[in-house]
Amino acid sequence: MTNSSSLSLSLKCYQQRSNDVLANWLSTQPFADKALLKAMQYGTLLGGKRARPFLTYVTGEMLGVAQDDLDTPAAAVECIHAYSLIHDDLPAMDDDALRRGQPTCHIAFDEAIAILAGDALQTLAFDILANGQLSQDGNTQRIAMVSELAKASGAAGMCLGQALDLDAEGKHVGLEQLELIHRHKTGALIRCAVRLGALAAGDKGVAILPQLDKYAEAIGLAFQVQDDILDVISDTETLGKPQGSDLALDKSTYPALLGLDGAQEKAQLLYQEALQALAAIPYNTSQLEVFARYIIERNN
Amino acid sequence: MTNSSSLSLSLKCYQQRSNDVLANWLSTQPFADKALLKAMQYGTLLGGKRARPFLTYVTGEMLGVAQDDLDTPAAAVECIHAYSLIHDDLPAMDDDALRRGQPTCHIAFDEAIAILAGDALQTLAFDILANGQLSQDGNTQRIAMVSELAKASGAAGMCLGQALDLDAEGKHVGLEQLELIHRHKTGALIRCAVRLGALAAGDKGVAILPQLDKYAEAIGLAFQVQDDILDVISDTETLGKPQGSDLALDKSTYPALLGLDGAQEKAQLLYQEALQALAAIPYNTSQLEVFARYIIERNN
Repeated sequence: MTNSSSLSLSLKCYQQRSNDVLANWLSTQPFADKALLKAMQYGTLLGGKRARPFLTYVTGEMLGVAQDDLDTPAAAVECIHAYSLIHDDLPAMDDDALRRGQPTCHIAFDEAIAILAGDALQTLAFDILANGQLSQDGNTQRIAMVSELAKASGAAGMCLGQALDLDAEGKHVGLEQLELIHRHKTGALIRCAVRLGALAAGDKGVAILPQLDKYAEAIGLAFQVQDDILDVISDTETLGKPQGSDLALDKSTYPALLGLDGAQEKAQLLYQEALQALAAIPYNTSQLEVFARYIIERNN
Repeated sequence: MTNSSSLSLSLKCYQQRSNDVLANWLSTQPFADKALLKAMQYGTLLGGKRARPFLTYVTGEMLGVAQDDLDTPAAAVECIHAYSLIHDDLPAMDDDALRRGQPTCHIAFDEAIAILAGDALQTLAFDILANGQLSQDGNTQRIAMVSELAKASGAAGMCLGQALDLDAEGKHVGLEQLELIHRHKTGALIRCAVRLGALAAGDKGVAILPQLDKYAEAIGLAFQVQDDILDVISDTETLGKPQGSDLALDKSTYPALLGLDGAQEKAQLLYQEALQALAAIPYNTSQLEVFARYIIERNN
């Protein structure tokens, strides 16, 4: 099997597992007939590549952690991602009507329910970390994970990135500022997904956090560069969201600042950086390697 | 000193302490010059009685916990409360322009920043529980607190209550449904504030959780009954928010369902219930008693 078809299979397996774990957590919530829970399910279970859970699983498994003990951090990080998409799509934010080829949450339900569904999904992430299965030394790991997820998603991480991004709309933004935005807006949670997998392995994982950070920061930024490239070269059907929307919103992007060739070169450079970081890790990093390639080769 | 002036002094002391602790946490966040952090500070530090931190402090101190070890859960529960106010005031939700006598967060900033500030305050609550000072057996307590706060504020607690409340707008809602709404919307977090104080005391606190729950559920509901009463009999200046807004929104309230006398009787009954619950607790419950009286006698 080639690397890319093996990854595709592997992605699908973890995607299915993530979906099952998330569906199970959502099914434990009360008032299943109410719009709030339906909107949480809609925002979480309707498609999505599950890239963050994938990173948590393969990082943890590389270090010998059982899949059952990775379900918890993988589901938590995806709840944060799902909530952020629901809120980012709101009229007051990016005002997007389409996500993964479907109406966004506030279109399918209404704005109030979309805000609350996002809020409750964020809460669920921490509920999962507190109550989901984890291996023996549970509480120390749990708290490390709560701390990690909070730092990555709050005012020093993802929320800050979204605020900086909104602030930059319609302004001329240089390369340095663009990188600052993306390192927070999408990078912080991708890095967190990798770190959570490592934390599940205890000291063994903590020992290689610096190398994993380098890897995750490179692929996190590469992910965004590729996103910007796809917004230029892909089409709405493949993307599942409107092609050309960055241009329409006059957003600063890598192709806008570096040209299309320059952006593609940047993605390649980041890919090489990711591989270099992995080379310093004394475990079988093949899944992380293949994923890095996927990041810069994906078409949606 | 009378009970009520002693409570007033005591409330002020804890209020000041809560404000200092919250201001300190907010000052540790990066990008202090940005709107996101300013909006978080605005939504958190501009007034507020700090009823929830008060309950956490006096419950914990009753059980012998040092104030320093209560700063953490008290600040966390107030961050959740502050975020919920910012989001509840949004145009898509209750659409309120005035809160504590000041423009609401989305008026003072804008909607996008208000949504993000609320999101990041929720995250900060869990960050505080993971990283704030706690006594020796820290991690077990921390995780119990994360779990408690998540259950109280998410899809089984506060967020559900707000969703049920929105759903009830413009509909005829009976007493049972009204109570269900308030037990989730405001009751869950008040109960949580008390429980967090008890959890900080370890087993000693866990042993009296059933009595504390009864107390907290009674004062939580009494708080809402009194809120409804004040909306009828008080004035905008004293309330710091528009008087008569429930009536204007055609909201179901205790005075609407029971008459003003009936609502005042209900508040008295709940007060008695709270006292009965405290009578079964073998510690000095005087602060909790006085607070219960304050709940039904306050005028704003």
